[in-house]
Amino acid sequence: MLDTIFNHRSIRNYKSDPIAESLLDDILRAGSRASTTGNMQVYSIIVTSDTLLKEKLWEIHFRQNMVKQAPVILTFCADFNRFNIWCRQRKAEPGYDNFLSFITAFIDALLAAQNCALAAEDAGLGICYLGTTTYNADKIIDVLELPEFVVPVTTLVIGYAADDPGLTDRLPVEAVVHPEKYKNYSAADIDRLYLEKESMEQTASLLEINKLETLAQIFAQKRYTKKDNEFFSGKYLEVIRRQGFMK
Amino acid sequence: MLDTIFNHRSIRNYKSDPIAESLLDDILRAGSRASTTGNMQVYSIIVTSDTLLKEKLWEIHFRQNMVKQAPVILTFCADFNRFNIWCRQRKAEPGYDNFLSFITAFIDALLAAQNCALAAEDAGLGICYLGTTTYNADKIIDVLELPEFVVPVTTLVIGYAADDPGLTDRLPVEAVVHPEKYKNYSAADIDRLYLEKESMEQTASLLEINKLETLAQIFAQKRYTKKDNEFFSGKYLEVIRRQGFMK
Repeated sequence: MLDTIFNHRSIRNYKSDPIAESLLDDILRAGSRASTTGNMQVYSIIVTSDTLLKEKLWEIHFRQNMVKQAPVILTFCADFNRFNIWCRQRKAEPGYDNFLSFITAFIDALLAAQNCALAAEDAGLGICYLGTTTYNADKIIDVLELPEFVVPVTTLVIGYAADDPGLTDRLPVEAVVHPEKYKNYSAADIDRLYLEKESMEQTASLLEINKLETLAQIFAQKRYTKKDNEFFSGKYLEVIRRQGFMK
Repeated sequence: MLDTIFNHRSIRNYKSDPIAESLLDDILRAGSRASTTGNMQVYSIIVTSDTLLKEKLWEIHFRQNMVKQAPVILTFCADFNRFNIWCRQRKAEPGYDNFLSFITAFIDALLAAQNCALAAEDAGLGICYLGTTTYNADKIIDVLELPEFVVPVTTLVIGYAADDPGLTDRLPVEAVVHPEKYKNYSAADIDRLYLEKESMEQTASLLEINKLETLAQIFAQKRYTKKDNEFFSGKYLEVIRRQGFMK
């Protein structure tokens, strides 16, 4: 288990080899064993392998080729639709058209996703999460025909790796861990915790390509800009509202 | 790996035995290897074992005794504070005071949490997620002294199990899986998918205790009511806003 966790890499190039049905079933069942609020299981997993649908998802996920290459795309959704139908069919009036219920379902979907990711990696498959899911949730809703009370949360690309990237760097664990209470960061803490990341050869070449002075500028000015974040914030909030969760 | 996933139970009674420091360190490092958006690691883990602090958390988490019993409480937070400080210290103006950035950090925190949960279970520890984290996030912020841009997402109770509950039932996996696109549920689908859950002895006794006709009514009228959900929705949205993520 720990080996699988500590060997995780995001795979961005895939072979076209299909995933055996029994293995895919194991992966999905692994997802369904994750913790879930009150055992409500308020999430759904859309398993897409159809070429045309994958092409539409590829378009939505910023044309990252892995979406077309990999045999299976799993879209994890916050889903109170099934639970609401069950309630109404059983003489109960559901009260889940609100933000807390969305958040609850969002959590369920992510714990299931990480179980699927680890089960896949444990079986020798590669995976990659697509953050673009929340950016273009509106378009995913159209393509996957998601009804009210279903909102895309994250996507896993799954398949056999066509390359073998090294482990990605991480901050020293003490950067993200706070004993007892939150301890805020001094300037010296930040320098120390980001030193390794900033000293990497890869960082130097990124700075040269982008003609920028610091790695933080690459994040703030190129990769995750205020303008884009604000644009996609508005879109995602509108999706949450339109799908029924902001009453 | 699959064994650990398929044997997951939520443990609600703990021995007071401490967790060895090296094991806890493995669990936290497992968290830090999880996928994270753009390798930003925009989450933090607060590790609380102090008796007084745990007592305050116990109060916040609806006085569930496991919070006092278990040796370690991990509070997972969406955290752009560290990243923002780093940006400012590196001549970059962060643009992360918006809802999308909150959602991004929320996802990061949950993937790390599930890695920690599985690493703990793999080592023979018991775990339980506390959904009450989002209900009383405001109080957790006070107790754990979380600064702006840090919002509690979920909590893991970790320790050695004092009981050995059976596996919890789950819906058949086809209930949560949709091949290719979302397929909505017919009345017959709902009857079939919820049959096992509704037929359980435990359900019959719950109905008798609550003097209600259906299991769905227990959820909608007792456990997760519209009134509570709306109250906690307002509180959590206010927390997100107050911590700086709704600009």
